[in-house]
Amino acid sequence: MDTVDLEDAFAAFEERWAPRLVASLNGQELKVAKLEGEFVWHSHPEADELFWVVDGNLTIELRDEPDEQLTDGELGVVPAGVEHRPVADGVAEVVLFEPAGTENTGDAEGTGRTSEVQELTE
Amino acid sequence: MDTVDLEDAFAAFEERWAPRLVASLNGQELKVAKLEGEFVWHSHPEADELFWVVDGNLTIELRDEPDEQLTDGELGVVPAGVEHRPVADGVAEVVLFEPAGTENTGDAEGTGRTSEVQELTE
Repeated sequence: MDTVDLEDAFAAFEERWAPRLVASLNGQELKVAKLEGEFVWHSHPEADELFWVVDGNLTIELRDEPDEQLTDGELGVVPAGVEHRPVADGVAEVVLFEPAGTENTGDAEGTGRTSEVQELTE
Repeated sequence: MDTVDLEDAFAAFEERWAPRLVASLNGQELKVAKLEGEFVWHSHPEADELFWVVDGNLTIELRDEPDEQLTDGELGVVPAGVEHRPVADGVAEVVLFEPAGTENTGDAEGTGRTSEVQELTE
């Protein structure tokens, strides 16, 4: 049985917008990411995406409904196909949950921000 | 977009071993539960199960390998089919992630501990 200390997982990297894999289950992946500033507008046509803010402040901008503000201990799910843009005021430490193989830029093109996922389990 | 404050979610109930649904995505469910004492030995033949300890101390006893100790900010995945027994020393506030429809008692019979899941999204 693999276990992970999330504090260690966040401490292991500084790169922004580059999710690290911490656990895989049922075809889904749990990742940790450090977000800062504005990301690109995008959507994931097939994948619901969970954002869980462990530390910091994250705004999920949405094209067709009010923005959502998430802070420590708050989480939200962006449904598949919903266009969104994460914006972090300062550095936000965030846990992501989504299907294996989901690109963080979704359907956005030419961003060059494909994430490198790396194993962190003990 | 639904959002959840996990502190509110844990504050909304006291029942032990009765997971509450906080988010659904990609056929999976994120639940919160308060665990205390010993649960039953069981396995989930088709479902990997994630345990994430938000507050407290949880031991995952495993039949065929060493026990795992999880405390605040630590998580582990029990693979499908692996017989396990969660044991909490005091009250442990735990987030669970597993496929929709997974019973917390898995293949154990006659325990009468089927959980009632209830929506908590805002």
